[in-house]
Formats: sequence, C-alpha cells, structure tokens
Amino acid sequence: MARIRLNRSARSTSDRVAEENRRTFRRHGVFVINMIGSPGCGKTAILQRTAQHFGGRLAVIVGDIKTTLDADRIAQGGIAAVPIETGGSCHLAPSMVRDALAGLDLAALDLLVIENVGNLVCPAAVDLGEDIKVGVLSVPEGDEKVRKYPALFLRTAAVLVNKVDLLPYCEFDVRRVREDCLKVNPDAEVFEVSATTGKGFEAWLEFLRRARR
Amino acid sequence: MARIRLNRSARSTSDRVAEENRRTFRRHGVFVINMIGSPGCGKTAILQRTAQHFGGRLAVIVGDIKTTLDADRIAQGGIAAVPIETGGSCHLAPSMVRDALAGLDLAALDLLVIENVGNLVCPAAVDLGEDIKVGVLSVPEGDEKVRKYPALFLRTAAVLVNKVDLLPYCEFDVRRVREDCLKVNPDAEVFEVSATTGKGFEAWLEFLRRARR
Repeated sequence: MARIRLNRSARSTSDRVAEENRRTFRRHGVFVINMIGSPGCGKTAILQRTAQHFGGRLAVIVGDIKTTLDADRIAQGGIAAVPIETGGSCHLAPSMVRDALAGLDLAALDLLVIENVGNLVCPAAVDLGEDIKVGVLSVPEGDEKVRKYPALFLRTAAVLVNKVDLLPYCEFDVRRVREDCLKVNPDAEVFEVSATTGKGFEAWLEFLRRARR
Repeated sequence: MARIRLNRSARSTSDRVAEENRRTFRRHGVFVINMIGSPGCGKTAILQRTAQHFGGRLAVIVGDIKTTLDADRIAQGGIAAVPIETGGSCHLAPSMVRDALAGLDLAALDLLVIENVGNLVCPAAVDLGEDIKVGVLSVPEGDEKVRKYPALFLRTAAVLVNKVDLLPYCEFDVRRVREDCLKVNPDAEVFEVSATTGKGFEAWLEFLRRARR
C-alpha cells in the first residue's frame, strides 16, 4: 500500500499484456467492457439483467478480492461467468484477465464484460485490453462521486447511475451528476437505470449495440 | 497501480510515523478512530451526527482523493475538520495525518476521527496511529460485504451498518452480516444505525464512551 506508481518496467509489462488481450478480443470479434464502480453499486445485478438480452452471446469475468459470490450469482442465470479472486489486490491486472480467458469460448461471444473489483480508485488507471470502460455509481452513494473520483470518470465511455428506484428515499440530484460528467468528460453518455426494476435498460442496451458496431 | 506491497523500508517508515502519531495522541489524551468504508456508505453523515454529542471535544480529519466537499460539510456544522486531498492515493498515509495535526488543538479534544478515503480495500492494511478501526457498510451496498472484504473487517473494533432506514426498500439480511462479522472477527461490535434518522446512535455513542476509557 502506498502512493502507487508502477515503475516503468512493471507498467510496460502490464500494458503489453493488455495489448495481447486486446488483439485476442479483436481476433474473435468480441467487444469488451471494463466495468468499474464502488462495492455494492450494483455491477452484478446490472450484468444479470443485461445478459438476459444477449442470450449466450454475453459472458462475464468477475473480479473480487475474496469469494466467488458474484460469479456464482451470474452463473446461476445460465450465463458464462469466470471468477477471479485477486487475493488482496484492489484491482484486476491484465494477466489475471488473460488467464481467465481460458475458461471462455470467445468465438461464441459478442460481448464480454469484465466486472472489476469494487473500488472507485485503483482500477481506473489499469488497461485490461478492453474497448471501453463503463463507470457505475448508485443513488444511495450520493451525487458527488464524479467530482470526488474524476480519474475514473474522465476515462469512461458511459456512466450508469443505478438504483434510481431509490430516488424517492435518498438525497440525490441526477442533474448535478450529469453536469459533473459533462465537465469531466463531455463524451461520456449517462444512463439512469434500475437493475431491480429494469427502468432505463432500453437506452443502455441500445448503447451497447451501437458501441459494438 | 499493482499488487501492492510496500517494500520493507517504506513499510517501516510508514509504521514509524504511525507510532509517532500514536504517541502524540496519547500525550494529549485523545482517543483516535480510523473510519473506513465504501464511497457513499455515509461516513461523513455519521460523523456529523456523532459530533453533535461531543460538542467541541470531537474533531475530524477527512481524506478524499479530490475535493474538500466532506470536510466542508462537517465544518459547516461548527466542527473542527481538516481536509486531506490525497491527490490520487487510494488511502491515507500516516505522514498525511501527521501533517494535518498542525491544524488541530489536540489538547482540547476527547475524540479524533480520521475519515479515510472511500475504499474498502487499500486503507485496511495501513496503520495511521489510531486506537481502533471502525468499518462502515450501508444497507444498499448489499449484505455480503464482510465476506468479500475480510481484510478490513478482521481489523475493526466496531462495524456500523448504516442506512437502516432503507431496509424496507433493499434486499439486505442484517442477521447474515452479524454472522459474517462473528466469523471473521468475534470481538467486533456491530451497530445498526441510520445517520439520516438517528436510529441506533445511542448504542454507538455508548460504545465510543466505553472505548475511550
């Protein structure tokens, strides 16, 4: 634990493996998302609902410090889900993703989502070989997260504001989040969703279909 | 960013500064808490309400990657609050706390709470010189956090389950959390609270008074 900077050689090894992953994904025509958000923001629930619309063409790699609970939840829905237990590391590394690919038939996939370790900080700076990063935040976390964690949100192609079903019970200004996103990263698309009720998923799914092309 | 291990000399410098902090706190008779939880779990709101019961005898050091929003919120309530912007670091270091102490009159305090960066992973392993660590999780995050982030919860003297006012709207089994805490760390006391409504705060405040003695 420290003010973390990979030294140049470790960084270049990491980036090299990320590039290898990227070439592998391209070869198989799979579009890959690196999904990043706080613990408990609803990444797994979002993936469960998203997967319903892609049938067997979507698979998930799920990173957790400890336990395979999230991968198990996803697999129960009949979706291919490969767990990675990082054993203490606060983010996924590209080599962990490379090793997890052995458990997947990439040729059968349109979309692969890598659910990163629940953490708004450390995963943001690490390229896994993905096409895009997607940031997830949730209504009960409060509406100042984009300001407080800009390093993530300036890299995301899309931001999911999850748990909008809890808006009546929380102080949360969606407009403020949209304005903050616009300042940090004008290209990011913002989607208000509820993985519990399904609200807002049409627009998110449409984004995924567009992004793939 | 990497699988983070401080090398031996950096670790020993960190521990040495933590010990200096601890001696400073003891000399002034201040009881110190290192509060750790996810982004948006309610650490700041808990501190705002807790401070009401300690008058001017409680101060807060507030770590954030970016912005001083949380420290500003606390200071608005007339409570001494020193912000630390870590500028990218995913947790507070003891040297940052040492430098922040210049902004506080320790002799006037009974209790100092260090609100760590919102992160369930990296802050857990770093000693800041505190007397105890307190873990915070919140109902909308889900009830599996103790299993997924055991490195934090095995070090906490108390666990606050915040936002119990949202229990009617979330799937969350408080009993499961209590059982998981008991397995990971039988000595940790678990408090169900709502910083919004004040529910459960009597027991938490009583814990603080006991712990101080």
